[in-house]
Amino acid sequence: MNTPLSVDLNCDLGESFGAYRIGNDDQILPYVTSANIACGFHAGDPGVMRKTVQLCLQHNVAIGAHPGLPDLVGFGRRNMAVSAEEVYDMVIYQIGALQAFVQAEGGTLHHVKPHGALYNMAATDVKLAEAIAEAVYKVKPEALLYGLAGSELIKAANRLNLVAANEVFADRTYQQDGTLTSRRQPDAFITDPDKAASQVLLMVQEGKVQSQQGTDINIQADTICIHGDGPHALEFARHIQETLQREGIALATPKVQRP
Amino acid sequence: MNTPLSVDLNCDLGESFGAYRIGNDDQILPYVTSANIACGFHAGDPGVMRKTVQLCLQHNVAIGAHPGLPDLVGFGRRNMAVSAEEVYDMVIYQIGALQAFVQAEGGTLHHVKPHGALYNMAATDVKLAEAIAEAVYKVKPEALLYGLAGSELIKAANRLNLVAANEVFADRTYQQDGTLTSRRQPDAFITDPDKAASQVLLMVQEGKVQSQQGTDINIQADTICIHGDGPHALEFARHIQETLQREGIALATPKVQRP
Amino acid sequence: MNTPLSVDLNCDLGESFGAYRIGNDDQILPYVTSANIACGFHAGDPGVMRKTVQLCLQHNVAIGAHPGLPDLVGFGRRNMAVSAEEVYDMVIYQIGALQAFVQAEGGTLHHVKPHGALYNMAATDVKLAEAIAEAVYKVKPEALLYGLAGSELIKAANRLNLVAANEVFADRTYQQDGTLTSRRQPDAFITDPDKAASQVLLMVQEGKVQSQQGTDINIQADTICIHGDGPHALEFARHIQETLQREGIALATPKVQRP
Amino acid sequence: MNTPLSVDLNCDLGESFGAYRIGNDDQILPYVTSANIACGFHAGDPGVMRKTVQLCLQHNVAIGAHPGLPDLVGFGRRNMAVSAEEVYDMVIYQIGALQAFVQAEGGTLHHVKPHGALYNMAATDVKLAEAIAEAVYKVKPEALLYGLAGSELIKAANRLNLVAANEVFADRTYQQDGTLTSRRQPDAFITDPDKAASQVLLMVQEGKVQSQQGTDINIQADTICIHGDGPHALEFARHIQETLQREGIALATPKVQRP
Repeated sequence: MNTPLSVDLNCDLGESFGAYRIGNDDQILPYVTSANIACGFHAGDPGVMRKTVQLCLQHNVAIGAHPGLPDLVGFGRRNMAVSAEEVYDMVIYQIGALQAFVQAEGGTLHHVKPHGALYNMAATDVKLAEAIAEAVYKVKPEALLYGLAGSELIKAANRLNLVAANEVFADRTYQQDGTLTSRRQPDAFITDPDKAASQVLLMVQEGKVQSQQGTDINIQADTICIHGDGPHALEFARHIQETLQREGIALATPKVQRP
Repeated sequence: MNTPLSVDLNCDLGESFGAYRIGNDDQILPYVTSANIACGFHAGDPGVMRKTVQLCLQHNVAIGAHPGLPDLVGFGRRNMAVSAEEVYDMVIYQIGALQAFVQAEGGTLHHVKPHGALYNMAATDVKLAEAIAEAVYKVKPEALLYGLAGSELIKAANRLNLVAANEVFADRTYQQDGTLTSRRQPDAFITDPDKAASQVLLMVQEGKVQSQQGTDINIQADTICIHGDGPHALEFARHIQETLQREGIALATPKVQRP
Repeated sequence: MNTPLSVDLNCDLGESFGAYRIGNDDQILPYVTSANIACGFHAGDPGVMRKTVQLCLQHNVAIGAHPGLPDLVGFGRRNMAVSAEEVYDMVIYQIGALQAFVQAEGGTLHHVKPHGALYNMAATDVKLAEAIAEAVYKVKPEALLYGLAGSELIKAANRLNLVAANEVFADRTYQQDGTLTSRRQPDAFITDPDKAASQVLLMVQEGKVQSQQGTDINIQADTICIHGDGPHALEFARHIQETLQREGIALATPKVQRP
Repeated sequence: MNTPLSVDLNCDLGESFGAYRIGNDDQILPYVTSANIACGFHAGDPGVMRKTVQLCLQHNVAIGAHPGLPDLVGFGRRNMAVSAEEVYDMVIYQIGALQAFVQAEGGTLHHVKPHGALYNMAATDVKLAEAIAEAVYKVKPEALLYGLAGSELIKAANRLNLVAANEVFADRTYQQDGTLTSRRQPDAFITDPDKAASQVLLMVQEGKVQSQQGTDINIQADTICIHGDGPHALEFARHIQETLQREGIALATPKVQRP
């Protein structure tokens, strides 16, 4: 292959709220190339958003909006029976709010990645996926749309000629159909850093991942999700970063190949 | 005077929320030249914002953001001990959210007018006034900033070379120092449409208003606040519009005279 | 049958919020025998709750708590993937909040009826139904629990020896399996007051309702849901009240027949 | 004096919210005799409230409601221009919500202590103080009302024959007029554990505190506020507890001496 391999490492940031702190934003930033900033619905508040944007600009990390469901007490993780129109509206609102801080600080909004239950619902629900893609298209058509690799959200982005970034996970296992193993299953998470790094390498270098059923499946890895909190998050991030660098894989925001 | 007189008529719109309806937005629109749209903190929600933006574009009414305090149950009318930094952040957030809808619908954000307690506090508190002006400057420096005529908010806008629009009230009485009579006073409101129309004419044509103490005071009237709800709102609006037109005063968004 | 027939007429009340008004609470009260008062999650606020409790006591209407999902902008009508534990906690919280106002005003909490999506989910989801019944049992075991006639909520109440009240609808049509026709179907609502009154009579006098499939199905009618807003709500309520009285059916809170 | 000296040690608990954690509730509990549990307005949520009530019952710590302003993002620390009626309603609501959990778990509500800005405003504003006292009186007249020692809240409680508990602070300095030194002053806090312990002893044993102006002032110390978070909170709590025990001062909930 002539083009050198590269991959994006993204992380959810700016999830603090008022007096409440979540995450080690300043410590995880050296390990990622793009960040998804909460927009005040499932997490984040205006002050946190401004400071997180400033932090990303200081670290030269690409800034994305991370819109979620209006469910602060549930951290946006509980599915809600929202209509496509409601999703379109709440995504427009949240992208706009974050974009204003990015603009005020002299930066550029790089991408949008839906959060939690909204991300999961948009992976399989065509109408919600299209609502999100449409919202990005209307507010910032040159922004990338991050979604679960191969999901309906990726397809909806492609249909609108948005640049889609297929997201893969270092610390989650996959099923034979390409979906993530449910968090309720005991084998949903990969806790061994070496195993996670191996999975990442296979995804980036070979475009494959081994499913829990033992078979290899095809997967496109444009961006890898890294977690910023939890006891071993930083160690995990460092290990993945080092593994990729050792293999000569560049860390960079997803390549834009417009159709 | 050679330049023909003109004045802006503005109205607060988009104050519904979820299943809750306030105002007669579609009925008041023919009487105004600019609208201040709630941004989800004191009133409004993403769906209401989108529909209100669409309505304004249909009626060719200039669109403004109407940011408020985060106090939905109090409708943003209760003073809060917010810091200048908090105000800066909440105004950036709300302008951005509304701007995204305006952009998605192909319009342009014309102005910003703070709501309720935020408006009142910014009329006299220099630091809060500067925080609001700074937020507008950072996100949309060409947007006008509406504030109480002659207030600290107007002065803060001027210092940043923003275009300030001095707002006057048709249905409120004034004190000798140029402030509005407190709503708690029995003589705070003008309920007679003829009296209101006369006050408006004096303000627009002569740059004066008669205070409750009997003396005329100077006042600059760039934009007149019209109310969209209440039993007689529409009748009141029609009467003021007719009076202004009969006197040959043009109804138009505030003239931009940059320093 | 020796015991004279009687039935309860209930209505959702106290759904206003802050500056927002919904419903004609004072006008519907003469037509009902029990009221379900919103508790601040999907609608209502502390001031509205106090005033609504006072209003019910003045009209000698039995007071119930009407807990809902934490979704103000969606008016508690959107299903959410809440756990049984979350439902238990949110129902305890809301019952307690309302009970404090009832106690402060010298009344007694008579019943609990879940609202909207919570009501619907609890009609078919055994675990959520049990969580609600358990919450009532823990806070006020002598309170009645209103639920969809024959639903899982009624069964869960019975298992805890709570007094369950089977709720039927005057203005909704039924399916052959005893469920309500979905609001998305064109034939979900009965708009003809005579038809609604006939359905009510059949349910109360014969314990039957004609399904949309044409067959009669058994249904127990302890309490009839009356709506307080909408253009014809009051007329509708009056017509049903008059029909029941003309037939000699007493209007009274559900009879307590403990197992 | 024949009666052995005793004093209450209280702590704010249950301030977590959804995915957000604040405080070391389980670790501070061994050092306190009463706890003030957040009720969902400035902090806390239904699940946190239930678990905190359970924790208090396990540790045999007296349970109090800790109602705050409806300002989650500001943690209830920002003064708001709320009316006495609004305060009455919001306190009733929050006491009721907590009381339901206490009742469900088989406990008894012991006291009420307003939080943050509500506490501070009620210390000097007679009408707000009376609104809070009235709310306690209406919902749970046998509950104690904790307030700043000698404040308007204590006086309002006394006027209603509620049992008032004068609260003093171990880690805050006092002014000559008995008020706390403002947090904005550099000398507002006592960071030396020995100094704090000495201040506590002087307050409990002599009923005096040395003001920042150098003079001793009279102060009644029924309960001492201990903080549960911050880097040295536990060490501080242990030191105060040990000092009091060494001096033979019993640690117990405030003595009820009804007038």
